[in-house]
Amino acid sequence: MAAPEERPAIRVALLGCGTVGGQVARLLTEQAEELAARAGAPVELAGIAVRRPDKHPELPPELLTADVEQLVTSDDVDVVVELVGGIEPVRGWLLAALKAGKSVVTANKALLAEHSADLFEAADAAGADLYFEAAVAGAIPLLRPLRESLAGDRITRVMGIVNGTTNYILSAMDSTGAGYAETLDEASRLGYAEADPTADVDGYDAASKAAILASLAFHTRVTASDVHREGIADVTAADLAAARMLGRTVKLLAICERVTDDDGVESVSARVHPVMIPRSHQLAGVGGAFNAVYVEADAAGELMFYGQGAGGAPTASAVLGDLVAVARNRVVAGRGPRESAHAALPVRPMGQTPTRYHVSLSVADRAGVLAQVAQAFADHGVSIAAVRQSDVGDRASLVVVTHQAPDAALQSTVDEIGRLDVVHEVVSVMRVEGEDQ
Amino acid sequence: MAAPEERPAIRVALLGCGTVGGQVARLLTEQAEELAARAGAPVELAGIAVRRPDKHPELPPELLTADVEQLVTSDDVDVVVELVGGIEPVRGWLLAALKAGKSVVTANKALLAEHSADLFEAADAAGADLYFEAAVAGAIPLLRPLRESLAGDRITRVMGIVNGTTNYILSAMDSTGAGYAETLDEASRLGYAEADPTADVDGYDAASKAAILASLAFHTRVTASDVHREGIADVTAADLAAARMLGRTVKLLAICERVTDDDGVESVSARVHPVMIPRSHQLAGVGGAFNAVYVEADAAGELMFYGQGAGGAPTASAVLGDLVAVARNRVVAGRGPRESAHAALPVRPMGQTPTRYHVSLSVADRAGVLAQVAQAFADHGVSIAAVRQSDVGDRASLVVVTHQAPDAALQSTVDEIGRLDVVHEVVSVMRVEGEDQ
Repeated sequence: MAAPEERPAIRVALLGCGTVGGQVARLLTEQAEELAARAGAPVELAGIAVRRPDKHPELPPELLTADVEQLVTSDDVDVVVELVGGIEPVRGWLLAALKAGKSVVTANKALLAEHSADLFEAADAAGADLYFEAAVAGAIPLLRPLRESLAGDRITRVMGIVNGTTNYILSAMDSTGAGYAETLDEASRLGYAEADPTADVDGYDAASKAAILASLAFHTRVTASDVHREGIADVTAADLAAARMLGRTVKLLAICERVTDDDGVESVSARVHPVMIPRSHQLAGVGGAFNAVYVEADAAGELMFYGQGAGGAPTASAVLGDLVAVARNRVVAGRGPRESAHAALPVRPMGQTPTRYHVSLSVADRAGVLAQVAQAFADHGVSIAAVRQSDVGDRASLVVVTHQAPDAALQSTVDEIGRLDVVHEVVSVMRVEGEDQ
Repeated sequence: MAAPEERPAIRVALLGCGTVGGQVARLLTEQAEELAARAGAPVELAGIAVRRPDKHPELPPELLTADVEQLVTSDDVDVVVELVGGIEPVRGWLLAALKAGKSVVTANKALLAEHSADLFEAADAAGADLYFEAAVAGAIPLLRPLRESLAGDRITRVMGIVNGTTNYILSAMDSTGAGYAETLDEASRLGYAEADPTADVDGYDAASKAAILASLAFHTRVTASDVHREGIADVTAADLAAARMLGRTVKLLAICERVTDDDGVESVSARVHPVMIPRSHQLAGVGGAFNAVYVEADAAGELMFYGQGAGGAPTASAVLGDLVAVARNRVVAGRGPRESAHAALPVRPMGQTPTRYHVSLSVADRAGVLAQVAQAFADHGVSIAAVRQSDVGDRASLVVVTHQAPDAALQSTVDEIGRLDVVHEVVSVMRVEGEDQ
């Protein structure tokens, strides 16, 4: 076989040249020799599509174009790397590229979480590759292990911290005792939160990632709208104080589970919400803008993946890994493993998903209060795992941790308890993970 | 395209049917439908080679054979899964299989650490796949991320706990304060150490894994004999006590580094030895038989992979992941990424590898002692990072932690200090990792 540098080059169209795209362009040039050796052929930029070519004096002018449609279907292009983000017009560009037989590498989680069916279909029809490692957990090699390394195993659970902004805010609230609004302001000031932080703090970003993870792990099409989503805006200093008192902390987790009901019927649950976990749990120690994802599989047991979840260079590393894989496939005229939704499991509504609750109450300090509260749990078929009562003046603090029950039953129990005369205040309600049941 | 179950089956020869092989055979049968969907064709057992077929009443008799040579080259076989272990005669079998165009999946670290060059050459010549995820860190998807996900990045360091037996022993010594021999006996009694624990406790197993990791990470052929190897037999209760006093613990680590000297010349260092690390380090919390590996790359930054490093089912999970990948490649008449040793960096001898030492001394408690000890370090060009002295009766305890220096210089310094009159005893000498320099 010819030496890599003598083979026809794999020609790359780069869409978008911001923080990540700039790093991809830099590494493609600086690491050209390495990349050629690993891909089996030179990997070269054929063009860079940006909105305003005149705004990029740092890039070779002959590569710049504003005409994306032309670039993505150009005969001179083998692979399209998409780093623009958002759904339209990107969806149309990538479908056009795939139809023209180009392979696609993208970091676009929102698009994949909504329109993966169309995109996979177009890739299959054209025999082209669609890779997207950078869409979830930045630099952490996570999707390839799920798609490939664990392909012979049965994944039962994927749970992790997949959004750096919310992890930074919750870590800061935990260490300073400050409230949410104040901590968000500080995070914005320091550049850890965007000017409009909605996508992060309301959990949309994490929900897109949960949809992608659940789809891969369970071979089932799960979209962002299938994911139950709660952000961190309602997490209070009181929640973190309650967690701290019990040796726990609060994290925003994406949780994807295979649930088998009593009749043996399987379904998939995907959700994003704040969770109380023990401080001894591996995810509790993941601070700042890092991401970490826990995977449980029947044969492999517990696995954890940890690393930087965002940033130009880390995300570019994941993009280049995909680009080398796609280039290698082109060199051998093959393609990578296809996506599969063959299991097609139903998505379980949140209300029917088994969860556990931590409930912290301020109650009247008199006989019979615990009995009334306990009766409310019993009336909804919820079994109590632990109770802790302590007196504070003429009131008492009552903390209840439940066993697993359908989320809707837990929710109704909390609603009912809030209406009891003996309950002065529901101080904190939080789901619990990572403990023995 | 035809449905997976209608395509010609991928036929598998299984060599060895012990703890791991038994699990592979079980999963191949139990997960047949899943595997077919993921591989794109049925994956079936064509035969199982065992030494004594009559000793396996649990397996289908028509599959059993003692004739390995015939099985591995049989026209009825597409893929050979080798779980026998050891170098000969396995090497011959696998070369014969590759030459006959069969793809190979193996968990054989000793063989890969010695003879990977022959095996890769045979695989390349035949256009066949050679996969070996299970050879390092059991169930943890580690080799595929190194080979593929990080293919566009520049890995600078791989450091981890890759041997469960020694990790169990060191964890137990740390928590009980007991000595090495006593703890090894207990580990053997509980089944955590083999009857002949040499391969584990003397670091041979970890050195094979270090060779495989260094080869993949640095695109350089590194064999087990290139790896500097020290086991845990000389780790004493005093070493662990010294570590504990400083908020550290001791782990047996495999460390693979890309080292650039002052002239900009790159080389590779691969070593296995006991190391003192801070208790706050992520590897410090990895207990019992778990494995964890830290990877540092230029663009991706720090990554960590964690999971079960041994055991029948976890290892079988890794084997099946490879088997599905190989089967997929067969279905599309392609092959996976080839190994590459294109960087061909020189291997740096241990003496020239930069390390840091922790030295704990029992010295005479009088003026001028510290000056003499400090002079010995200075004479060898070793710079001191921290000193701690405390009096115990008429003696003093002196702990020195150095900055980085060539390992040989540190070794000579320790030798010289041991000969000083004022030094009563060199209590503990241990390399240090995971701290700011």
